[in-house]
Order: sequence, then C-alpha cells, then structure tokens
Amino acid sequence: MSTDQNQRRPEARKPRGFPDRTAAIIATERRLVDSISAVYARWGFEALDTGPFEYVDVLGKFLPDTDRPNAGVFALQDDDEQWIALRYDHTAPLARYVAENWERIPKPFRRYSAGPVWRNEKPGPFRYREFIQCDADSVGVAGPGADAEMIAIAAEAMEAAGAAKGEYVIRVNSRQLLDGIMETAGVTDPAQRGTVLRALDKFDKFGVEGVKLLLGAGRKDDSGDFTKGAGLVANQTDTLLEFTTAGSVTRAETLRKLANSVGMTASGMQGVRDLSEIDSILNALGIGEESVSFDPQIVRGLEYYTGPVFEAEFLREFRDTDGNPMRFGSVGGGGRYDGLVARFRGEPAPATGFSVGVSRLAAAMAVSEGAQVDGPVLVLVLDKDKVGDYFAMANDLRRAGIRAEAYLGAAGMKAQMKYADRRGSPAVVIVGGNEREKGVVTIKDLNAGAAAAKGMTDNEAWRSGRPGQFECPRAEMVERIRAIVGQK
Amino acid sequence: MSTDQNQRRPEARKPRGFPDRTAAIIATERRLVDSISAVYARWGFEALDTGPFEYVDVLGKFLPDTDRPNAGVFALQDDDEQWIALRYDHTAPLARYVAENWERIPKPFRRYSAGPVWRNEKPGPFRYREFIQCDADSVGVAGPGADAEMIAIAAEAMEAAGAAKGEYVIRVNSRQLLDGIMETAGVTDPAQRGTVLRALDKFDKFGVEGVKLLLGAGRKDDSGDFTKGAGLVANQTDTLLEFTTAGSVTRAETLRKLANSVGMTASGMQGVRDLSEIDSILNALGIGEESVSFDPQIVRGLEYYTGPVFEAEFLREFRDTDGNPMRFGSVGGGGRYDGLVARFRGEPAPATGFSVGVSRLAAAMAVSEGAQVDGPVLVLVLDKDKVGDYFAMANDLRRAGIRAEAYLGAAGMKAQMKYADRRGSPAVVIVGGNEREKGVVTIKDLNAGAAAAKGMTDNEAWRSGRPGQFECPRAEMVERIRAIVGQK
Repeated sequence: MSTDQNQRRPEARKPRGFPDRTAAIIATERRLVDSISAVYARWGFEALDTGPFEYVDVLGKFLPDTDRPNAGVFALQDDDEQWIALRYDHTAPLARYVAENWERIPKPFRRYSAGPVWRNEKPGPFRYREFIQCDADSVGVAGPGADAEMIAIAAEAMEAAGAAKGEYVIRVNSRQLLDGIMETAGVTDPAQRGTVLRALDKFDKFGVEGVKLLLGAGRKDDSGDFTKGAGLVANQTDTLLEFTTAGSVTRAETLRKLANSVGMTASGMQGVRDLSEIDSILNALGIGEESVSFDPQIVRGLEYYTGPVFEAEFLREFRDTDGNPMRFGSVGGGGRYDGLVARFRGEPAPATGFSVGVSRLAAAMAVSEGAQVDGPVLVLVLDKDKVGDYFAMANDLRRAGIRAEAYLGAAGMKAQMKYADRRGSPAVVIVGGNEREKGVVTIKDLNAGAAAAKGMTDNEAWRSGRPGQFECPRAEMVERIRAIVGQK
Repeated sequence: MSTDQNQRRPEARKPRGFPDRTAAIIATERRLVDSISAVYARWGFEALDTGPFEYVDVLGKFLPDTDRPNAGVFALQDDDEQWIALRYDHTAPLARYVAENWERIPKPFRRYSAGPVWRNEKPGPFRYREFIQCDADSVGVAGPGADAEMIAIAAEAMEAAGAAKGEYVIRVNSRQLLDGIMETAGVTDPAQRGTVLRALDKFDKFGVEGVKLLLGAGRKDDSGDFTKGAGLVANQTDTLLEFTTAGSVTRAETLRKLANSVGMTASGMQGVRDLSEIDSILNALGIGEESVSFDPQIVRGLEYYTGPVFEAEFLREFRDTDGNPMRFGSVGGGGRYDGLVARFRGEPAPATGFSVGVSRLAAAMAVSEGAQVDGPVLVLVLDKDKVGDYFAMANDLRRAGIRAEAYLGAAGMKAQMKYADRRGSPAVVIVGGNEREKGVVTIKDLNAGAAAAKGMTDNEAWRSGRPGQFECPRAEMVERIRAIVGQK
C-alpha cells in the first residue's frame, strides 16, 4: 500500500458524546419506551412525532446555563438560508405544533412522544449528546387536576419501567411557591430571581453550603473557576434556605409548614392551594407518600415552567466499576408551562407535561440488572457443498422461534466453535459426513459444557469426555434444542 | 397586544420535508420495526446503534446523483472545527464501526440497526428528509451464501411486515453481470460506466425509451431540463437493452439467458455463478419464484455495491386520493459491498446487507389498510369538587387495560361529548348528582349511538331516544365498558 493511499484513507473514529450502543442497552431502552408509551396511551394520550428539526426561533432559548447564541443545540442553515436546529426536548416542538394546528386539534390536546433529543454540550460519563426522552403533555388545561394527573402518570411510568415501590420517588414543588418565598425574601429583580433559581437547583450537586455561596457572593470550584453568586444578604439567604428545607415525611405536614413560610404572598398562597388539590387527587388514586412527596428543593432547570414542577428520582442503589455504592438520581421530570404556546399565539394556552429520560433510566437499569442478550444457536457449516442443508436446519430452528444461523465465514470447525462462544450461543449443531450417513445431528449444549468444565455437573456426557454433547435423530433436533434454550 | 409584541412573536412553522406524524402512522412504523427486527434477531443478527452523527470524511460520498460537496447530507462543524453530518444510511456508519472495532468483534460480524436516516434533498410526496431504515448486514463473508441469506431474509421481512405471498417480490441482479455486459458492449471508461448505471437505474421512472435516450445523447424532461446521456452508439445501447430485458418467469430460465449474453467475460461468468449458487440455496429454503426473481434491470443507485444487488418491491395495489390505482414499488434493497470497510483498513472485508425503507413501507401499509387508532373512554367531569372520584373511575378502567381519561378542560357536558367524538372515544361514562345518589353510572356506547343514528339498529335504547345509552351499578362499569370496547 503506497503512502499516498494511506494518506487518503479516512480514520475510523466518531464524534464525542455519541457512543455506539449495543444489543443489551438497546433492548433495555426499547423495553422502557414500549412500557412507558403504553402507560401514556392508557391514560388517553396519542402518539405524535414532530420530527428532528425546528427553526431556531421556534425552539427559543430555554435551556439552562447557556448564554451564547445557538448554544446547546446543533444548528445549521437550510437551503433557504433559514437556521434550523435539532430539537433539544419534545416540549418546544409540541408548542409549535399546537400553535400551528390550533383550530383542528381536539382540546384539551393530549399527546405523547418518544424519541431522541440532541444537546450540543460537553459529554461526560452517562452524559451524552443524544438521548431518548419519552414525554406526555396536556395542552389547554389550567387547573392543578392536570398536574396531579401528570404526577400520577410519572409514578405509574416508573413502575412500568421496572422500579418497584420504594425504588423511586416523585418529588413535587411549585414555581409559585418559589416566587412567593423570593417575594418574602425581597428578591424582586427578574434577572436576580433567575440566578437564585439556578442556585437553588444545585442542592444535589453542591449541598447546602455550596448553594449558600451561590446565593451570596459566589462559589469557587475545585478547578479554581469562580461562579458569581446572586448577591443576597444573610437574612435573605436564611429565608430561602429555611423554605427549601421545609420538606417533611408526609405531604400534609410539608403543606402545613409551607403555608406558614409563604402564606403571606399571593403567589405563595396559590402554590399552596395547587399542591393541596394535587394531594387530594393523589389520595383519591391511592398514591401514597412513598411514591410522591412534596419537596421545596425541586426547581427544574428549564426556564419555561410556571406552576407545579416535579422530578422522578430512581432510588435503586448499584455499584460503580470500583464497587462503590451509587445512585442515578433524577431520571425524569416535568411541570406546568403556561407561556410556551402563547409565545406563538399571543393568547394563553395553559399546559403541563412529564418527560422520562429513557437513556439515563435504561443505563441505570442495565447497570443494576446486568442486562445481556442470548446468542443464536449456531449450525456449523462443515461441507461447503451442503450449504443448502445447513441453511435448511437453521431455518427449522427459526420456524420454532429459536434464534439460529448457519456459519458463513471461511473457517474450520475449531474457529466456528470459537465464534459460537464469542456470540454467546447456547448450543451448536454439528453435521459431518458421519452424521449425514446415519440421519442424525450432533448437538453440543454450550452452557452444560461450560458448567461441566467447572465441575458443576457429573453426567454421562462429562464422563465420556464431551460434556453437554449428544447425538439425536435429525427429526428431533428442534425439540432437543428447544429444551436447551428453554432450560437456560 | 402591541405591534411590538406581534413582531417579536415567532411564526409557528416547520422545515420542509419533516412532516409531523400522528398516531396511526407511528403505530404502523413501530409494528414494522418490531416485526422486521424480530426477523433479523431470529437469523442471528445483534442490534447495534451507531448514533446519528459521523465525521464527513468517514461517511464518504456514495449517494447517487449528488456532485456538490456535502450535498445530500445535513452537515455542521463540531466545536473542534471538524465537520460532522447526520448519517444518510446505516451502512457507512457500520463500515466505520467495524473498522474501528475490528480486533474485538466476532467475525463474521452480524448486526441489525433500526432508526432514522437523513437526506438533505428536495422533499416531495412520500419523499421525506428523515425516514426510518431497518438494516441487517454480514461483514467478513465472501461467498454468495451470505447474499442468498440476505435475499431470504428480505423475503421473510416482507412477510413479517404484512405482505402476503404474491404481494411482494425480491428482484435480484449482480453488479458483476452489469460489468460483464458493459465490457461486452465496449463501455470501459469508469465515468461512462457510472453514467450508464445511473441510466439503467431509471426503467421505473422513464421506461425503456427514456433509458435509451439516457444511454445515448440525452433526455429532455417535461420541464425542458436536459440530462446529458452516456453517449453510447446504437449497437452498444442495443446490447445493454437486450441484456436488461433478459428477465424470464423462472430463475433458471433467466440464468440460462444471462449466461448466453454475458458468459464470455470473466466478471459476467462470476455473476452467473453467484446467481446460480443463490438460486440453489433459495431452493433448499423452499423460496419460490413468486417471492424471489432474477431481474437484469436492477441496478441500485448507491455507488458502493460490488456483487449481487437486489430490491424488495411491494406489489399491493391501492387507490390514490383521486381513486386511481397505484403501486408503491421499491421499499427496500441491498447487496454486496466488499470495498466499504477496506476504505478504512486497507485490507479487504467483504460484506453484504439488506435495508427496508420502513417509513415508505409504513406509508404504503397505512394507505392500503386505512390505519387508525381507537380513542380512549372518556369519564365526564361534571362536579368540579368530585374530581378525585372521576379520576378513580378512569383508573379502574385503565387497570383493566382499557384506555381511559377523565376530562380535564373547563367545559360543560355538551362540549365534553363533542371532545369524546373528536377523540374517537368508544364510550363515555357519565356520573352526575343523580347517578351518585343511586350508586350507578350512565354509560353511552358511542359506536352503538352512531350506528343507531344511521338507522342500523332498533333497540330499546334507540326507541327511548337515547341510542346506546344505559345505566348500570358502579361495580359493573368496568365489565360493561370492556364489552363495548371488545365488541368493536
């Protein structure tokens, strides 16, 4: 190969933050999308797919912590010179859809959506630039009943995804409670309020002390980078922290405490009333404290929320690669966003929704459950002029619903056995001249073989020196393989 | 609303070629992806998702009919200044994946992939800029056995998707046969060969006369645009057209004719031998002429094919919006591409694959079957202070697996009934003060009501003036609704 050709050869590499995903995680994601979508459909939501691209002005700028133009999204110019971008969530495109089709959609408008969203951010562990979200939204509904429904759906979706009671919790707060407490603390400037909310969204990341710094002068991180704070004075910070630590074991008790701390302001009172109505509907549905709690620390980063907000937290503990116990934390969330459709229409169109971060939840499930996919049964191809026969055998297995393939590479028996091992095949079927003459097949049960090799069984085959291997008539092949695949 | 505010309001619109897709078509696509993926998995392929973006040099330029740089793809610069683009198919990213992971993947490497691909082309009817493809590929297999397997999988995938025998056909040809006939016709210049192949790919679009023009001086279309031809002389054109019309009813007869017309050249002989072996494997699998035929007119536009190529055609007839009979034609295809992985590695890595255009096939299925989704049962909300009760009733229905929702808008009974109608609800549940006092619910079977209104039934309810409407004890609600939903 000449140097010239080498230089022209592209390097096989891929953009950061878009990992190649293999069978086990794909299967887990697929299962989650299917089961969560089934919950949404059962609650009366209809599927809608708005497609990957929107005009940049339609998407708006609602992502947290971005201040450059087009920051956070993948944008490009279409052939008509207009800027388009890949959606960063399912909500902004929904608002566009509702505004565009307002006259011909049923109202309330209830839709669900499952598919990838894209964020042009710095990738990290479990932090990708493409991930799947599965959302349900109600547009055209003003009362807390619709929010209560979303919260109930969130709990049901977590259980459908495989989180048992006690392995998840939906934590609920209200932007109006947060407004009320900011008013009480004398934080009135809108820009300062934004900084305060971003600070209060960091309890998970930085703890109470870190949030205190961000509410005050600012915080320096381990790398020495300084984040300017909201500039509040001590008694303002105290008021806010007292509120955000008012969470209690029961929803009723938390409500009582909150009513005390923010009851004086109009928006605080509205927030308490909304949460009370949500509580009473959850009670009617039999949804208890272990599934849904009220938590004044919940903020939600996206700027378009206007009422009740909530997060779904996956509590199951797992071990990281070093064996340390870990939790995944928030795997979804939602809330009320009454202004998003009005951006287009000018008239109010109240709305509320919930989104599951399926990729994140699937990663958590796969790590904690050790997901894997069983390989296919391999029919060895030993006589090249009998390929049709080997194909027909594999076909018989597939017709019985068993994953099976005939080996198609150019390799001998030993390499074919190694291939079966690498694929995780439960069994191989071996037919040479000898078997063909006798009308039989040789079957090797690879799991039994592996178990026997570890001294875990002591059967006849093992004593014969060929653990898990036996001969049977060709006509019994499917039945015998089914027993091996089924018994696993 | 001030003029200033109006001007700042974004217009709710979306980029061309990315239609919003609603429940029925999404359900059809989902069904096809699931059933075709199940076929691939059963044949021993493993799921792999390579993500949406690849580096532009990795994707290469294999799309037909594009000659501008980056033409045909959606490309943008990543934050490290490198150009990345959304994948235009699943094959180019697979080649990158295989080259990047060569040492640690089992070989042969068998993977399937289901997901969107993006083409930056002019959109048209049934021609979108995003569509779903569902692919299977074998890498590291040289013989026609692997091609025969792909063709058998193509037939099985079409049947799994819902095409009965006779409603589809897989048409097979070979690039080496085409090379052989071009050699026979004295077409040796690589650029001219490319033009000839593009011309031969247009039988569907322009018929024999149109292809003749494209092989010769060129063709002017209805709009007056002129496409320059390959510049062949009459006897060259005749040789090519004789070959491409050599298709016959049986594979054996077609093979005989082809052996006569291209048997003299080395590549033509190789093509005939490959198709013969494919024929014998298909026969061993019991796959007959009505499912798979040999057709010298098949070319496949993508430039990376090197051996057998084939197309899956959906033959079911349907009516367009004007009532004219129509067919969708090609809904998938594939073939051998031995050079694609070698682009990266320098060493040969033979490969073959098949791709179903799921979006296209789903559109065909939806049109011919009139797909629709049943709406949810609606529990009317008549007393605002009993919302919890209405929620609990809807919950009882959902627990029985029935789609159901409590009405959440701010509207009276008449508007709620209209909403149920627009949602396609099979039934509504009505509980006012009267029902609550008696411990009953009123159920209205909307389909029975609609049928009765058309004079199609004559039951007691109809004579009472309330067709399909009846009262039952609250405890019997689920059972009665189940009968209505089930009896549809």
